[in-house]
Amino acid sequence: MADMRNGEAGASALELFNSITTQGELVRSLKAQKASKEEIDSAVKMLLSLKMSYKAALGEDYKADCPPGSTAPDGSSETNGTDSNEDFVDPWTVRTSSAKGVDYDKLIVQFGSSKIDKELINRIERATGQRPHRFLRRGIFFSHRDMNQVLDAYENRKPFYLYTGRGPSSEAMHVGHLIPFIFTKWLQDVFDVPLVVQMSDDEKYLWKDLTVEQVYGYTLENVKDIIACGFDVNKTFIFSDLDYMGMSPGFYKNVVKIQKHVTFNQVKGIFGFSDSDCIGKISFPAIQAAPSFSSSFPQIFHNRTDVQCLIPCAIDQDPYFRMTRDVAPRIGYPKPALLHSTFFPALQGAQTKMSASDPNSSIFLTDTAKQIKTKVNKHAFSGGRDTIEEHRQFGGNCDVDVSFMYLTFFLEDDDKLEQIRKDYSSGAMLTGELKKTLIEVLQPLIAEHQARRKEVTDEMVKEFMTPRKLSFHFQCFCFDT
Amino acid sequence: MADMRNGEAGASALELFNSITTQGELVRSLKAQKASKEEIDSAVKMLLSLKMSYKAALGEDYKADCPPGSTAPDGSSETNGTDSNEDFVDPWTVRTSSAKGVDYDKLIVQFGSSKIDKELINRIERATGQRPHRFLRRGIFFSHRDMNQVLDAYENRKPFYLYTGRGPSSEAMHVGHLIPFIFTKWLQDVFDVPLVVQMSDDEKYLWKDLTVEQVYGYTLENVKDIIACGFDVNKTFIFSDLDYMGMSPGFYKNVVKIQKHVTFNQVKGIFGFSDSDCIGKISFPAIQAAPSFSSSFPQIFHNRTDVQCLIPCAIDQDPYFRMTRDVAPRIGYPKPALLHSTFFPALQGAQTKMSASDPNSSIFLTDTAKQIKTKVNKHAFSGGRDTIEEHRQFGGNCDVDVSFMYLTFFLEDDDKLEQIRKDYSSGAMLTGELKKTLIEVLQPLIAEHQARRKEVTDEMVKEFMTPRKLSFHFQCFCFDT
Repeated sequence: MADMRNGEAGASALELFNSITTQGELVRSLKAQKASKEEIDSAVKMLLSLKMSYKAALGEDYKADCPPGSTAPDGSSETNGTDSNEDFVDPWTVRTSSAKGVDYDKLIVQFGSSKIDKELINRIERATGQRPHRFLRRGIFFSHRDMNQVLDAYENRKPFYLYTGRGPSSEAMHVGHLIPFIFTKWLQDVFDVPLVVQMSDDEKYLWKDLTVEQVYGYTLENVKDIIACGFDVNKTFIFSDLDYMGMSPGFYKNVVKIQKHVTFNQVKGIFGFSDSDCIGKISFPAIQAAPSFSSSFPQIFHNRTDVQCLIPCAIDQDPYFRMTRDVAPRIGYPKPALLHSTFFPALQGAQTKMSASDPNSSIFLTDTAKQIKTKVNKHAFSGGRDTIEEHRQFGGNCDVDVSFMYLTFFLEDDDKLEQIRKDYSSGAMLTGELKKTLIEVLQPLIAEHQARRKEVTDEMVKEFMTPRKLSFHFQCFCFDT
Repeated sequence: MADMRNGEAGASALELFNSITTQGELVRSLKAQKASKEEIDSAVKMLLSLKMSYKAALGEDYKADCPPGSTAPDGSSETNGTDSNEDFVDPWTVRTSSAKGVDYDKLIVQFGSSKIDKELINRIERATGQRPHRFLRRGIFFSHRDMNQVLDAYENRKPFYLYTGRGPSSEAMHVGHLIPFIFTKWLQDVFDVPLVVQMSDDEKYLWKDLTVEQVYGYTLENVKDIIACGFDVNKTFIFSDLDYMGMSPGFYKNVVKIQKHVTFNQVKGIFGFSDSDCIGKISFPAIQAAPSFSSSFPQIFHNRTDVQCLIPCAIDQDPYFRMTRDVAPRIGYPKPALLHSTFFPALQGAQTKMSASDPNSSIFLTDTAKQIKTKVNKHAFSGGRDTIEEHRQFGGNCDVDVSFMYLTFFLEDDDKLEQIRKDYSSGAMLTGELKKTLIEVLQPLIAEHQARRKEVTDEMVKEFMTPRKLSFHFQCFCFDT
């Protein structure tokens, strides 16, 4: 699991088109053979999911007999669809031409998820008795699947659990990587539920030019940063795939169950795999899917298979869980619910990509106060005007200003943030002042993280990563009867 | 792992042709890009392996720009190559038109393995100080890869281990299923080496319409039959994939390493998978491959990664291990050596298939003495003549007579077997007498097996299936230094 991984390949438009055609034929043939309703329904769902991916990739509906770019006889068909103003989002590629970043309202329509609206936020507040996290108040977690179902269950004293993860591709984590963990910690605190965190070191081994030992080393380093976010050891299990697969009586069985119910055609359509991809990549989606089912953690859920899972993650991970939700009813498990976040922008602007190999593309968790100051002053893309005079007259543009965007993520005080927005937009606040505010927010945030990380011992890492019982709310109600 | 599994699909000739074309392009492109020697070598090896599969399937060399059946414009191209007198062998399909069965000498050439000749058999005898097993004396184990290398090491007091397996697709095992186990037990006894036995219940779950619980149940039943073959509990570890994957710190890591180094194009070429196969089938070959590496069993080999593996199996399993041998040097492990057996013929004749669902196609390990008698008398294909007079005059044909074939597998006495061959061929022995001899060999053999199986307790099953240390020859030499 990783947000905005550097992409080897996205599904080409033509491959997606062909997958849809094939899946359509399958549906017709199942109907002709009078196959079971369940089988037909499942094939139809996959067809709809592929069509959704197609629309997300090309910004237009799939039309049979009209392959992508068929109006462009020069052979440049595959990029035509995505070169337009449409955004493209999958686990490896996030592409937008707008400095404001991806159009998230459109993404909700394309992905078929639901908007986190005021009503849902109010309901979370009522259920937990806590003020909603700033990520909810500000639309950073903006989309969901089945969150109302989780709340229905919670209000009926039925438990759920949280699942999130990270692909450890290097030792270095940046502030953007913290977003899902900061929010997940809040969810754990307010709902009092267990959390499982997948370190998909196997994925990073498969995708990158790294050894098993290297990715496992990155896992241990990254786990320290995750623990430093403040998770409760009594309610949190962090696992390396490479380790846990060999320690759990439930995990592999679920992986195989998922793998039996997903074809190569399907992962080709969803993830854009090709025939020259290794078989590890092709079967990996089942490994990211399996922790969505409580029976993957018999030590936590006492072999119960029906505890619902809630997954907070960046929206680019949704394809994995669309696939998981398709498979779930066919193997007798509840579908996981999801909370989707927007992307964390690179310092250079919301349409560029952060990269662990470019230290100037983000603020890293290892940066010194001085580095933070220099990076923000030098690299944070500014929505200000070319001269002070122009700025004072016309004001800055918060919609494209990266310093302002970062403040929406990290400045807790709503009133202060609103004041900054007004002042910067009117020209009353200059770019230097805005950047100074951000620097003063980030410096203590990073310093405190570093201090907490320093306190994380190897023994604590070991404890978090040991399969064991976890304590949580409703536990008596559910497991001791 | 299974001998002569009922096939969903063999690679179509055209698919194989296309895979070779793609792989050829890859090699050219790697050379053009001046890729590393290692990378090019590995791609070239895979190309040769695909060409070998092509030749095995079509009986003719791959020719670029000349797709299979291109001389047959009627569209029947895909079967043209295999409808001839050529045999076809892969893990799911064994096809021959000859009542004598597959032409094994041709298969050695097609697969690129080596014949087990008199010289090798003599060397085994010298190394072990034991008379060679009747399966060696009679060419039932007829082909090998790198057996001389295993013997070199053995003579230098370096250890090796045995690996064989079974796909538990039903409770019922027949005598044919015992062949690899009988021979493996002999190898274990004469070389004094550890043995690992893979029960690929995950494979059966993926391929068949069975639940995880069903295949695991079949595993436990089949393990009892395997234990009844007489394996030494101090030297034998039997494991269910579904169980052991979740118990071993080494197995999954090796599976992922293999999965990183095999592409979909390659498994398509080797095993004939298609885009509509589930991702579990596509990645399964890595799971059958992984026990070929000693680091999959750290509890047995003390984390050593260089203990050579010797795999006795039916020749149809060779494609899995050709793939394994291609991958081994790229992940730093020794290639497994192999000993290949011929197929055990169905009662109806060597060109038909045994089937667990047809009780009359073989002798089952649960058959009563009466059932054995009836089956042999009624169903064993006879090489005898239509009338006693003709038989006395012209003699019977041992080459196609199934009762005689079964005797070559189970009658220990060479002289007696030779006498029977002579007498039946000359007409001195009648079909009824030949069948009676076989019945008198099979009845006690099955009865003794049943008696030993009855002695196998659930506790013994548990002991054989518990990951633990094993004792073996050269142990001190190798592991305590």
